Amino acid sequence: MLVALAEAFAQEPPTAGAPHFLSGDRLERPANYREWVWLSSGLGMSYRSENTSADPSFDNVFVTPAAYRFFLQNGKWPDRTMFVLEVRASHNKGSINQSGHYQGEVMGIEAEVKDEYRFPGKWAFFGFAGGAGSAAAVPKSADCYSCHAQNGAVDNTFVQFYPTLLEVARQKGTLKIIDPNHESNRH
Amino acid sequence: MLVALAEAFAQEPPTAGAPHFLSGDRLERPANYREWVWLSSGLGMSYRSENTSADPSFDNVFVTPAAYRFFLQNGKWPDRTMFVLEVRASHNKGSINQSGHYQGEVMGIEAEVKDEYRFPGKWAFFGFAGGAGSAAAVPKSADCYSCHAQNGAVDNTFVQFYPTLLEVARQKGTLKIIDPNHESNRH
Repeated sequence: MLVALAEAFAQEPPTAGAPHFLSGDRLERPANYREWVWLSSGLGMSYRSENTSADPSFDNVFVTPAAYRFFLQNGKWPDRTMFVLEVRASHNKGSINQSGHYQGEVMGIEAEVKDEYRFPGKWAFFGFAGGAGSAAAVPKSADCYSCHAQNGAVDNTFVQFYPTLLEVARQKGTLKIIDPNHESNRH
Repeated sequence: MLVALAEAFAQEPPTAGAPHFLSGDRLERPANYREWVWLSSGLGMSYRSENTSADPSFDNVFVTPAAYRFFLQNGKWPDRTMFVLEVRASHNKGSINQSGHYQGEVMGIEAEVKDEYRFPGKWAFFGFAGGAGSAAAVPKSADCYSCHAQNGAVDNTFVQFYPTLLEVARQKGTLKIIDPNHESNRH
């Protein structure tokens, strides 16, 4: 039984996880992103120092498996890379847990896609508000474009917050900003 | 290039991720668990209410892909299921992040394996202290055995803290304890 299931997994089509666009460059919401490669999760992360919510949310980041494997080899992202950011509520007390935070319901799903031919800036962002099945790209005037371009450690992406890939980028020499985990840069 | 990489992924051996034992029932530390299916991450989770560390750690949980797919179909774990718990430091300020927590260096790697023929209690726990390449099972007198057996929502596992699998177990009717996210059980 296990072998049969594993073989089914191994027989996934090679396009599994590739971005799928509908008419008008609308991105179809990926159904199986929880089976992609998970990169990291943060809790309550914010650009603003005053943001210390008593009810912070988790940010879970996934990337398409083929793009992940390309990154391990090259320290950069190939065309057709797709990220999903899944935002979930945090809970504090439940079952045997008495302190700290564990994950609850989905509060939002967003995607970032690299498509050099489709998008003039190569990367585009998408938000699937209310569980929508597809979404048009966020307008290029949105802050996400400039923030990722300026602050992403590799290309348009926050590799500085993905510890295993940060190490790969260090080794491949593809980091474009100061290492955030370096002692002199941590407060 | 992408297609070639994706095909390489699809051609993984069907035993990828299965537990591998050395002589004396020592479990080999899995090398590629970051490419398994991630179930959830918590921050600073504790059984003790007084544990409110200023420097909490993240718990990241991964499971072998074949076991995950079996669970989606059946709401329970097949023989040869393997979990990895990766404990990572949390950081607070770095790059553009000003509040909240993101993940840093590995602080510990542990595993839980179901093997009905090898272990009298079916499940066994392993800790790879100091990055050891293999480990013998934790003695059965350790708290982890009794705590998982008593408090795990499905079999010996804390499905109550893995939100997508919790929903599967609800639908399949395999939950053995009160739902921790039910309002009446949350404080």
